[in-house]
Amino acid sequence: MMLDKTHGVTWASGYRAAAVHCGIKSDSTDVALLVSDTPAAAAGVFTTNVCCAAPVLVSKRHIHSEAVYAILVNSGNANAATGEEGFSAAVMCTEEVAYRLQCAPTEVLVASTGIIGTQLPGEKIIASLDMLIAGLSDTGGQEAAEAILTTDTCTKQCACDVMLSGGTIRIGGMAKGSGMIMPNMATMLAFITTDAAIERHLQQQLLEKAVRCSFNRITVDGDTSTNDCVIMLANGASGIQATEQDLDILYEALESICIELAKMIVRDGEGATKFVSINVEGCRTEEDAEAIARTIANSPLVKTAIYGENPNWGRILAAAGRAGVAYDQAGVDVYLNDVKAVDSGCHAGTQTMVLADALKPSELVIRVVLSEGDKQAEVWTCDMTHAYVDINVAYT
Amino acid sequence: MMLDKTHGVTWASGYRAAAVHCGIKSDSTDVALLVSDTPAAAAGVFTTNVCCAAPVLVSKRHIHSEAVYAILVNSGNANAATGEEGFSAAVMCTEEVAYRLQCAPTEVLVASTGIIGTQLPGEKIIASLDMLIAGLSDTGGQEAAEAILTTDTCTKQCACDVMLSGGTIRIGGMAKGSGMIMPNMATMLAFITTDAAIERHLQQQLLEKAVRCSFNRITVDGDTSTNDCVIMLANGASGIQATEQDLDILYEALESICIELAKMIVRDGEGATKFVSINVEGCRTEEDAEAIARTIANSPLVKTAIYGENPNWGRILAAAGRAGVAYDQAGVDVYLNDVKAVDSGCHAGTQTMVLADALKPSELVIRVVLSEGDKQAEVWTCDMTHAYVDINVAYT
Repeated sequence: MMLDKTHGVTWASGYRAAAVHCGIKSDSTDVALLVSDTPAAAAGVFTTNVCCAAPVLVSKRHIHSEAVYAILVNSGNANAATGEEGFSAAVMCTEEVAYRLQCAPTEVLVASTGIIGTQLPGEKIIASLDMLIAGLSDTGGQEAAEAILTTDTCTKQCACDVMLSGGTIRIGGMAKGSGMIMPNMATMLAFITTDAAIERHLQQQLLEKAVRCSFNRITVDGDTSTNDCVIMLANGASGIQATEQDLDILYEALESICIELAKMIVRDGEGATKFVSINVEGCRTEEDAEAIARTIANSPLVKTAIYGENPNWGRILAAAGRAGVAYDQAGVDVYLNDVKAVDSGCHAGTQTMVLADALKPSELVIRVVLSEGDKQAEVWTCDMTHAYVDINVAYT
Repeated sequence: MMLDKTHGVTWASGYRAAAVHCGIKSDSTDVALLVSDTPAAAAGVFTTNVCCAAPVLVSKRHIHSEAVYAILVNSGNANAATGEEGFSAAVMCTEEVAYRLQCAPTEVLVASTGIIGTQLPGEKIIASLDMLIAGLSDTGGQEAAEAILTTDTCTKQCACDVMLSGGTIRIGGMAKGSGMIMPNMATMLAFITTDAAIERHLQQQLLEKAVRCSFNRITVDGDTSTNDCVIMLANGASGIQATEQDLDILYEALESICIELAKMIVRDGEGATKFVSINVEGCRTEEDAEAIARTIANSPLVKTAIYGENPNWGRILAAAGRAGVAYDQAGVDVYLNDVKAVDSGCHAGTQTMVLADALKPSELVIRVVLSEGDKQAEVWTCDMTHAYVDINVAYT
């Protein structure tokens, strides 16, 4: 699958986007509007956090509409922990967008990211809507990808073409990360658009499956922030309907895009200097492998060691051992970028200098091989650095 | 309960201890021996980590002996991920101690803490045993408390007298922490001695209950390191038997000592500058309260904010919301050292400067009050600092 990282949500036909500075942030664009010119089927995966944000409550309802025409996203303010006032502000935003696009408020989705607990200045957003709509363009994806960022340092987009039985369709997406890629990550938002026509329930299934194999591999199930969401629109503007036999290839493209966006989020983790794949193999079940991989990926001791290029593989073994999975500790091998550190649960005899050298690249693979079965899982994370502490001490 | 923090494992009658430098560490004492002059009943709580260390495997067996006479502890080497060779070294240490004390090897317990994955230099420890035994003293508790430390910056001891129905008995303990107080903390060891006589199965029950309310409140159940253990000996040297009616008061003393040692570990967390109690109230069950408190306590975003005296209460709400407990987010109040930050799930209106001032003391209480019930739990943690990253980058 060839991915084009210079295009995003306006790659597919029939989508336009724009972004402006409405005044939530001090100086950069902070509100984006994505519009589908034809009625789009929507699918969504939302945070499971009890303390979920107002826009999540609203979009979780609206996602069930037969058609969706727009997604309004703001950065700088999460509209979370804002009670009924925040909920009303989110609803009012959908109403004002709907009024201008001549659709129903339930056909508009909203998403927010930024500081928790400050009321959303809905009037600033609403005052910017005319300008946003006037600026809508089928090349506006880049602007939109910029406007949704918070502490991210770069935009995250990718797109591709997919040959279905009826012809070629397009699919593209954008995301924002920020926050350490950890259970308690800051908000992750992702938006994916396609010009294929897909039945709503099928699209929902495809999206849920793709999220499990991508965005959920960089965070822990159920351990999401107040605002996390992944939304997909399919507007059929290509004139091509995805049939039953197209689903596999369409899924493959969707998964590739989700994985790429997820990896971009990790690479841009707060203060991160290294991208790390934790590959756990030889397990009885994929769930076991994932639980072990996630426990290693979330260990501050492992993450600080990677930052220091310190080959302290004992921390990897210790994290694996507390993942809640039973296994034979004498049957474990560990490789740091293909250099064997642990053999059958003990030091493999490799010199510390050689292991430390294995940790020098900015992209690392930590392989943990059990001897319980043939199932495996991969989780992506980054290191934990001084800069991470700096960023999070100062963030409010 | 008046706790004396200048005495530890040799406060109770019939216990002697000593420590020497056997050569595992470069310059400080690194092996301690604690001996009971009379046969002691032993109780123990051990790590649930799959990758558990050789001394844990050995002591888990020996703890079931009718009598225990000694505990040998070394620092600087965890004897974990050392396979059969490590296991043999641990067993050999028990044999050599037993030979010199004229007891059975199964009547000797061992514990280790330090680097994982390096073979234990058992010969160095064994070569030091004669000196250790010659140095045994009923004031040796302080030396022993020093010798078991790794990256700890101070010894952790406390003791008290308890009036039972038959007279006054003594109880004392020592601990080591090191490592961030987090699920993936480094080794935590604690040793408690009493000169009361207690039936073995009762002592085990008391210890398990006390550990749940103390050491397990600073780490997550099942999320323990390769070497964690808490061992208690009761040698009856006071001549006083703890009867059924003494159990409550004895438990209270034991719990107080365990809580004090646990809090000392948190205060001495790697790089810590603040001690934080996370008190969660108003829950349906104590388990719910504990799950929420632990999730907050383990959040790097919360911990870095506390370090920065940054009153980002949104991170507290976000962490609470992903603890896996269902509750009404509109019924949550949050207090930072008695200053209300969140009222009914929203900003309480308190000025940021006032909230920031509330975070200035070095001892903090974060209270999260739900409106689901009347159960509560308290978890203790510390902040996450630049020094934490420094220490853990360099540790190997």
